[in-house]
Amino acid sequence: FGTRDYSPKQMAIRERVFTAIINCFKRHGAEVIDTPVFELKETLTGKYGEDSKLIYDLKDQGGELLSLRYDLTVPFARYLAMNKITNIKRYHIAKVYRRDNPAMTRGRYREFYQCDFDIAGQFDPMIPDAECLKIVHEILSDLQLGDFLIKVNDRRILDGMFAVCGVPDSKFRTICSSVDKLDKVPWEEVKNEMVGEKGLSPEAADRIGEYVQLHGGLDLIEQLLQDPKLSQNKLAKEGLGDMKLLFEYLTLFGITGKISFDLSLARGLDYYTGVIYEAVLLQQQNDHVEDPVSVGSVAGGGRYDGLVGMFDPKGRKVPCVGVSIGIERIFSILEQRVEASEEKIRTTETQVLVASAQKKLLEERLKLISELWDAGIKAEILYKKNPKLLNQLQYCEETGIPLVAIVGEQELKDGVVKLRDVATREEVNIRRENLIEEIRMRTSQL
Amino acid sequence: FGTRDYSPKQMAIRERVFTAIINCFKRHGAEVIDTPVFELKETLTGKYGEDSKLIYDLKDQGGELLSLRYDLTVPFARYLAMNKITNIKRYHIAKVYRRDNPAMTRGRYREFYQCDFDIAGQFDPMIPDAECLKIVHEILSDLQLGDFLIKVNDRRILDGMFAVCGVPDSKFRTICSSVDKLDKVPWEEVKNEMVGEKGLSPEAADRIGEYVQLHGGLDLIEQLLQDPKLSQNKLAKEGLGDMKLLFEYLTLFGITGKISFDLSLARGLDYYTGVIYEAVLLQQQNDHVEDPVSVGSVAGGGRYDGLVGMFDPKGRKVPCVGVSIGIERIFSILEQRVEASEEKIRTTETQVLVASAQKKLLEERLKLISELWDAGIKAEILYKKNPKLLNQLQYCEETGIPLVAIVGEQELKDGVVKLRDVATREEVNIRRENLIEEIRMRTSQL
Repeated sequence: FGTRDYSPKQMAIRERVFTAIINCFKRHGAEVIDTPVFELKETLTGKYGEDSKLIYDLKDQGGELLSLRYDLTVPFARYLAMNKITNIKRYHIAKVYRRDNPAMTRGRYREFYQCDFDIAGQFDPMIPDAECLKIVHEILSDLQLGDFLIKVNDRRILDGMFAVCGVPDSKFRTICSSVDKLDKVPWEEVKNEMVGEKGLSPEAADRIGEYVQLHGGLDLIEQLLQDPKLSQNKLAKEGLGDMKLLFEYLTLFGITGKISFDLSLARGLDYYTGVIYEAVLLQQQNDHVEDPVSVGSVAGGGRYDGLVGMFDPKGRKVPCVGVSIGIERIFSILEQRVEASEEKIRTTETQVLVASAQKKLLEERLKLISELWDAGIKAEILYKKNPKLLNQLQYCEETGIPLVAIVGEQELKDGVVKLRDVATREEVNIRRENLIEEIRMRTSQL
Repeated sequence: FGTRDYSPKQMAIRERVFTAIINCFKRHGAEVIDTPVFELKETLTGKYGEDSKLIYDLKDQGGELLSLRYDLTVPFARYLAMNKITNIKRYHIAKVYRRDNPAMTRGRYREFYQCDFDIAGQFDPMIPDAECLKIVHEILSDLQLGDFLIKVNDRRILDGMFAVCGVPDSKFRTICSSVDKLDKVPWEEVKNEMVGEKGLSPEAADRIGEYVQLHGGLDLIEQLLQDPKLSQNKLAKEGLGDMKLLFEYLTLFGITGKISFDLSLARGLDYYTGVIYEAVLLQQQNDHVEDPVSVGSVAGGGRYDGLVGMFDPKGRKVPCVGVSIGIERIFSILEQRVEASEEKIRTTETQVLVASAQKKLLEERLKLISELWDAGIKAEILYKKNPKLLNQLQYCEETGIPLVAIVGEQELKDGVVKLRDVATREEVNIRRENLIEEIRMRTSQL
């Protein structure tokens, strides 16, 4: 039904990714919050446009009407308004729910993780926005997913563009939805939708068509600031001015090489009010001739200055900007890579197996492992009274345990434990009182 | 509606607790899995006895009927059967859902975390069971929650006791539920329920009453193994034999001091088949005269050898034993303790604030912080073009940031950065190329 279990191996990959992302969020000084998996239904109503039909409702079993959260942004805004917080930098990693048609081969599920980082507060322009892009850049570089591109645009530039192209105000949002499809379908189809379904004049559509094929950097921003039509539009001018400032900050961060100001980027959600962005992975074509093609979005976000105000009884606004990392697609890519490489992923961290070479030594194994646990050593035994030594060694091979501590009659008499290195098969007797130190030393590089 | 947000401060406490628990689970060689937050409704049906009415159902919006998980044990059993896994040691930390009357002051919510550790597989008797108790002992010791007691019993001993006391087979489960209330209400009330509501003879109830007041250690086990009635009952004899073995293993682990074989322990859930246990915190009375009183259960579990078979089409059994840590009650206790102690909890890990003493240095701050982030240093700036130095220093005081890296005109000329220790207010100029090393060194002990 569109959800999945995570096996220990998948969890090991997932934890690597989470660790990289959480380290980055913490590096940028973020706090962490958590919110419930369900919200009042009314909290989610009217926030997601056409996608509202994908919300999961709980059965009315008496009490309030509840829905499973659709993203982490709306609960965050509700949290800020409810607690009158006007200033916070937080991350939140949790599952969200959509009654979508699952496409499990492409890493799309009805239950999936989102990793969100947001900065809320009244600040000087574009500084937090630039930090969000720096974060995307750091995470995608760190995860070594291959080449990527971060597309940037601004809702005000889009709205200004629609205005100067002759789109009526009432059609801004729906035409914006059409533009949003440009990463998946060619311009001709999008134009047909605008003209055929949405009743836009072909001339207006063609004027949009010219703008949305533009992409570049500071040079394009300067060019559009000189554009006779756009420069006359107040919104577009504001958006372009901020875009210029953003690129100046990104230049200081040294990351403009992977950032493209792209007039075709629209993003679906209603609540964005300023800068928007989306990161895509690029896949080099096999023949190395064509341009790299996008294989899908792995992060996205933008500025939403009006959302918190929707939850405040007095409508007080808290400006916000944030980014969401598309963790499920990243999992899929890394899972496939692990499968292909036949890399062995350890699913436990056990440092030592406590084993015995003869029978009737369960009590001695239990005493020794108890000492190791109490000293903080990660240790296992086989749950058998009289396991064969071969089975114990095989267990280490299979699960990647690097050391075996072997107790036997002779070792007990001599006050030692035989410590075996599973990889090299070397064995040395270690005095019992030195065993813990020896295990720590041998496994500290791992 | 019986759920709650977690603030950054609460999350910081929560992460401490999770870290202690996860470290323990990993020390014992556990893998980790995850399952979806909702299951097919039929998966949960018939597993929880009377408590089934507390299950949250999703609204029927087309497709399968789904329910939010009630615990992590049933999804685990479903996962094992579905994937034909006969052998695994895993932990799972996730939220579960119950339509209970929330009692938020006592740390009871409708959405709450469970931390489960389970060992599945056909093993020699009582070795995994003993490890589960060792784990409870390690976690409760590690978290320093005060004195605690782990009560242990066995469903087979209970059933044997019911049989020899003259309880008809058909009433075993319901009389077991009555016994389960003994930690909250006095024996007289429980007896009234057994006789009045459940139609047990007063004589049978009195015989039960004599058994359920017994608690002790190996001596009590030996005594009951000699009990003329109990020793004649096959189930009780099996249970007592295993209990003896368990206590021998617990003696090797050195933890019998906090473990009590207690015939009044019953536990509510239907699926237990062997050993059961429950850990309670003890609170010393103020006058230090009376016995310590229990302030509630913080961990519980037991053996459930039949549950996996309920999900296997051929009914193949996988014996399981596990423990669940009652994390929410532990949070409440630690939160109250932090409140009372006025201990300052840091909610970020930021090592250094990049600040400036004069105006017009935003660009320099951005350049420097970018270098620090790229070197893995946890750093923040204020999102203002020209922040006052005083405000920057105050921000460090409030949030516990230990260092400030100050750039100014003179420092830039000299190729240095002024590094200030927030606690001592000492300032030294550090050559820019040595800054990262210096910050690492100064914060490595933190």
